[in-house]
This record gives sequence, C-alpha cells and structure tokens, in this order.
Amino acid sequence: MSATNPYAPNPSDFISNVPRFEVIDSTLREGEQFANAFFTLENKIKIAKALDDFGVDYIELTSPVASDQAREEVEAICKLGLKSKILTHIRCHMHDARVAVETGVDGVNVFIGTSNFLRQHSHGKDMSYITKAAIEVIEFVKSKGLEVRFSTEDSFRSDIVDLLNIYTTVDKIGVNRIGIADTVGGANPRQVYELIRTIKSSVSCEIETHFHNDTGCAIANAYTALEAGAKYIDTCVLGIGERNGIVPIGGFMARMVVSAPEYVKSKYKLNKIRDLENLVAEIVQVNIPFNNPITGFCAFTHKAGIHAKAILANPSTYEILNPTDFGLTRYIHFANRLTGWNAIKARVEQLNLNLTDDQIKVVTNQIKQMGDVRPLGIEDVDSIIKAFHAKEKDNTSNANENENEQPGAKRQRVD
Amino acid sequence: MSATNPYAPNPSDFISNVPRFEVIDSTLREGEQFANAFFTLENKIKIAKALDDFGVDYIELTSPVASDQAREEVEAICKLGLKSKILTHIRCHMHDARVAVETGVDGVNVFIGTSNFLRQHSHGKDMSYITKAAIEVIEFVKSKGLEVRFSTEDSFRSDIVDLLNIYTTVDKIGVNRIGIADTVGGANPRQVYELIRTIKSSVSCEIETHFHNDTGCAIANAYTALEAGAKYIDTCVLGIGERNGIVPIGGFMARMVVSAPEYVKSKYKLNKIRDLENLVAEIVQVNIPFNNPITGFCAFTHKAGIHAKAILANPSTYEILNPTDFGLTRYIHFANRLTGWNAIKARVEQLNLNLTDDQIKVVTNQIKQMGDVRPLGIEDVDSIIKAFHAKEKDNTSNANENENEQPGAKRQRVD
Repeated sequence: MSATNPYAPNPSDFISNVPRFEVIDSTLREGEQFANAFFTLENKIKIAKALDDFGVDYIELTSPVASDQAREEVEAICKLGLKSKILTHIRCHMHDARVAVETGVDGVNVFIGTSNFLRQHSHGKDMSYITKAAIEVIEFVKSKGLEVRFSTEDSFRSDIVDLLNIYTTVDKIGVNRIGIADTVGGANPRQVYELIRTIKSSVSCEIETHFHNDTGCAIANAYTALEAGAKYIDTCVLGIGERNGIVPIGGFMARMVVSAPEYVKSKYKLNKIRDLENLVAEIVQVNIPFNNPITGFCAFTHKAGIHAKAILANPSTYEILNPTDFGLTRYIHFANRLTGWNAIKARVEQLNLNLTDDQIKVVTNQIKQMGDVRPLGIEDVDSIIKAFHAKEKDNTSNANENENEQPGAKRQRVD
Repeated sequence: MSATNPYAPNPSDFISNVPRFEVIDSTLREGEQFANAFFTLENKIKIAKALDDFGVDYIELTSPVASDQAREEVEAICKLGLKSKILTHIRCHMHDARVAVETGVDGVNVFIGTSNFLRQHSHGKDMSYITKAAIEVIEFVKSKGLEVRFSTEDSFRSDIVDLLNIYTTVDKIGVNRIGIADTVGGANPRQVYELIRTIKSSVSCEIETHFHNDTGCAIANAYTALEAGAKYIDTCVLGIGERNGIVPIGGFMARMVVSAPEYVKSKYKLNKIRDLENLVAEIVQVNIPFNNPITGFCAFTHKAGIHAKAILANPSTYEILNPTDFGLTRYIHFANRLTGWNAIKARVEQLNLNLTDDQIKVVTNQIKQMGDVRPLGIEDVDSIIKAFHAKEKDNTSNANENENEQPGAKRQRVD
C-alpha cells in the first residue's frame, strides 16, 4: 500500500482486489477429501470455531448429501452462530439443492465439470444440459433467500466459449459469485491472469477461485487471480485436500501480508495461524512441513554469516515477514561452520561476556574450525566462547604483569 | 508443446525459455545454509553424484573461503568428473575469486547486495564501488578461462536504474550470466515477469534466477521468469536453504513437465526424484512434507467418490501429472464415507467377486454408513463387501428356490 513497498499491488491494476480479498476456507469440505482426514463432529466444531476466531469470511462444508452424518454436521455447525458465513458445496442437482437449503446454511456453492475430460468421463452431460441444470438450481437457491455460487470444475481445460456462455448466463440471473477452479493443479500465473481478466470483463458478479497445488503454484495463482479481479480465494488449513491439496491458508496469509499489510493485519488474527495449523495437523495426523511458510521450524532461522550480520543490524535486510506479526520469534543460527563473527558477537553479548571485536574474530575462527569437523550444538559454541574468554582474561592479567608482551601477536588467524 | 496442451508455453511469448531451461542446483550451497544441514564430505559426494545422475546442468557449491574444509570439499567434488558443471558461489571480492579459480570449478557465481537494505546494513558499499569490484572480479575469472555469473542480491528491492546500470556494464565485459535474486522471498509472478523482461531487453547474456519461498511463490516465480526470458533456475532438493528455502527441484519438475513434457522427460530422470529427496531428507533429518508435489504420500491419492469415478474411467480427468513418469503409482482411497460406488466396484473386481451394479450401490451405502461412525481401514471395507457377497449368494440361492421373492425389493437405499 505504501509507496515504499515494492511488493504492494501494482498501481496499474485498477481491477486488482489484492487489498480487499476475502477467504472461503474449505478445510471442512476440500480438506475432508484429504487422504488422512476423518473428522468427527466434535473435531469439525473445533476447526470451525478456530477458523471463525482467525477471521475467515466463509466456511465451506461437505455436501449434506454425502452421508447422513454429513447432513447432521452441516446443521450442527450452522447452529453455532459463528461470524463466518457458512456454505455447503453441492453438485449441480436439484436433489442436492433441496437438501442443502434446509440445513440452515448462508449460501450454497454449486459446481459442475465443464472440461471435455469431465463431460466425457464424469457426468456425461453436454453444455446445454449443464446450462439448464445451472439455471434451475441457482434460481431455486435464490428463491430461498440464500447466497449462491456457480463454479465450473477444471476451468483451465474447458473451452473458453463454453465458459463465457455459462458464466454470462448465470450472471444474468443473479448468481452471487462464479467460481473458477484449477481442479487438476496445472495452471500457471499468467494463464490465470488472462482467464480471470477475460471473464471479469464479461460478468458483473464476483469471482471465486479454487487452486490445487500439484505443480506448486497454488498460492501464486491465487495472488495473481486477485490482481486480475477475482475477490474470493478458497483455502484450507495446511492446504489439505484431494491429492496434495489446495492453497494453504498460512502460506496465503504470508503472501498477502507482504502485499497488503494494513488490510491483512486489521482483518485476520495472524498470531492464531500456528494454533490453527497445529489443531488440524493433530486431527489429520500429519506433521507441519519443515519448510512451511511462517510456521516451518526454520522459517525465521538465519544461518549464513553474511545473513546473520545484516539481520542483527536490521531484520528487514533478510526478512520480508516479521515473525512478531505471527506471535513468533527469529533465531540466529550461530552454531555452525558458516557462522560469522557478527553472529558470535551477538551470542557473546547474550552470555554477558566482554570480548573485543578482534577477540571475537579469533574465537569465531575456532568455532568454524570445529564446525568443519562435526555438527555443533549451542552448548559446544558456548563452551568454546567461555573457555576462550577465561584464557583471554588470564592472558590479560599476565600481560599486565609483564608489559612488554603483546597479546594481539597470538591472533593471526583473523579473516 | 502440443496444440492440445493448455498448459504449454504461451505461443505469444517469443522470448520464453520454458521449453529450454537449465537447472543450477544449489543443495550444496544454499542447502548448506538450511538450519539442519551439516554435510560431511562423504555426504556431499553422495548428493553431487545423485544430482548428476538425475541430470542437473550445474551443481553450485559453498564458497571455498567459508572454511578450510569447504575448500577441500570443492576440490574433491571437482575431481569426481561429473557430467554436471561445477560452480562455486563467492562474494564479489578479489580474495574470494583468487581462491575460487584455483579449486578446479567450471565457473564462478559472484554475488553482491544492491538493495538499500543490504548496502546500508550488510557491506556498506555504494553502487560505484560495487561496479568497480564487479568488473575487476569478472575480468579476473574470465582471464582464467572460467564461466562467470554476476548476481545482485535482493534484486526486487533494488533500484531499477542501479540494476540496469550494473547489468549492462557486466554484460558489455562479457559476463556469461547475470543473476536476479528474490533473496527475501517477497516477489510475485507478474512483478517477476516485468523485471526480467525489462532486463532481458537490455542485455545479451543469459539470465539466472534465485527465488526464495517465504511467501510460497518460488516455483511459480521461477516458471514466470522463464516465460520472461530467463534460462537458468536455481533449485535445491526439497528446497532446503536459508529460512524456509528456495525453489524445490521436485516441485519445479512437476511444474515443468506439465508445460514442456517432451523436453523435461528426455533430459531429466524424473523417476529418480523420490530417491534424491529421500537421500537429502535423511542427511538433513527432515521428513518429506506430507503435501510435497509428486512425492508427498497422498500426491496421487484420490478420495471423493466423484473423483474416484472419473479417475477410474480416465486418469487425466483429475491428474495433470502421470505417476508412472515418476516411477510411482496412483491410489484410489475407497475406505471412507465420501466414497462412491464406482470406487467400490473397482475394489469388488480386485477382490474377484461378482456383484451387479445395483448390489454394489447397496454395499456402498453400508460402507458410507460405517464411515460416518469411525475411520475405515481397507480390511473393514473388504469385510463388509465379503459379508454382503456371501449373504447375496445365499439370497440368490433362496430366491432360486422360491421364485416369487424379489431380492431387489430389499435395496431401497441406493442413491
């Protein structure tokens, strides 16, 4: 937002929704399709409350038609009185719609496949059937006073003419949102930008997007979709979903807080991301990935000497995210052979010892030599520093006794 | 590449290097800056050989100036006679350059920070100093007959005029590659496209890129950089590096094989990705992330009934990656309450049992009801199917005895 933030929205994008996006979290729908997910009602309620507390705008739930229990769960979550609006995700069938509108949801997310692949191998319907079914279902849901979204599955492998036809049709009858889905996770950012911008220029309703992560582009595609005028992003906690999942809410927040810091920090409780991820990770029995944005164990760990030096002078040099925004702290990894004397100096100060810069350079060299031989723990480094400090103190006393001796002469390995 | 692949390079990008990119793997340099990394020489050699076998174009090593051991390691790896070219990564200092050229490397990757942040808080030098140092180091490395790359750190927070000045200067004196680095991991794809395209139009040398993953966009940024005319992408196995790392080679290959399948499959041994990742994961003591592209445990697992049905008819419906390209197999997760009768039918056939579609719909319903109550194992589902099959067989025998009875009348819960 500020003129000095090179990662702020591109000023030439007048259609950009980067600083006013909304989140539709689908942990309780897409996430339920994750291989390891089995959510009891109790756990679904825990997750829904945590999402609501974090501040997601919408919570999407598994279709009430999926099973008897699924229906009871939708009804139970609607009765919690959360601030987040509740949606359920149904096939484009009147039967599903009739069940959905009776559950107490705020809105219904309708989907159908429009790619040749899905038309041939999934439902076997043609575009005129799809259009007719869409109109019937949308008008029915609207007649009940609920929000309705109409989404195509596998949009990026669908014919652009088919897409524009169906989206402009449902737009005219007053759909609230249309959904564009990269169901197989193959889209790339500029392709996303072009498709969304084209569709945006043809409809007046809002655009929701759903990006799978098979090729590692889900977060970037979501960001680029906002630049092109989409407003709603589907996320899951840790990205859990079919195959390797969709846009993870934590990584997405990392992306957005860099580009629209005021908006994101005022709207979402970023310091709850860690708890939210831990809750879901425990329920679906996975570990937080070591390289997870924000909460990966080393996301704020700096190791190389040149990095540590600059971070100690000003954290922004090597940090685009501020760990305190997420209730976390940074860590300077000084116990290794890539360490530098600035990192060791910081450690010496933490240990409340007095050494000159020259002395610190000598002890840093000793630490690096030891680090060449084996992995170092913090206690190893502390021992080396303390031993060096004790010896230097002795040397200084001896030197004071014999003023002709120059202690500095022993320190030639400084680099 | 083929006209029917919507994920192929954009035909309007005449500068795109998507179908002719090269990989500079930095697991043994950037990866050594990962919090958990301590590489012995023996392990460095194992990793270098595995990277070479996979087919990376370049292997980048930690500066020989980092420690005595680091220098010996560079020399040892250069002596292995790998097909991959060997680079080492040094500060823009004549001292470092003099050491580097004596190690036996094929090329030297020189870097210096050009952002205000790094100029103030890291090395404290101005642009005219940087330019002078760059020219001296590049001319020296070239005089030794080695490849040389000159890279700015934190390029996206550097002044565009400074960048163009320094890049055109080093281009004129014959640098082989210039490097553009998102050192803090804050760049987004369209920003990458614009910066790289601008620089590409000002220089004749090739462009290398280095993307950190703090905001989850590293793979997408790398892909977009290729679209804008960059040719070389820095990767690490599992993306390990400072903080949460850089472009992971596995996820990057997932991205590239979708867009340039012939090129990628003919050049890189994709079926070695799993072994390469397992090797490095074991050495740095991390788990493969559950949601890792390609090798995450569920990357090719399909769960929802509607997905399973279509995958059974044609895997491309819900798969943009083919697991067999990576020496892996897909898995239809049928033991859960979101299952559908097509998935159960496939299981019935695997069990070599005979049931009609109507019968399979009944038993599917029983499985879904059980799945509402508790998590199901494969053996649970198999027991339900086998019990049902045995009972139906009895019913059929009974029905044959009493032809007035209609076994179908008992099956009303089909949906």
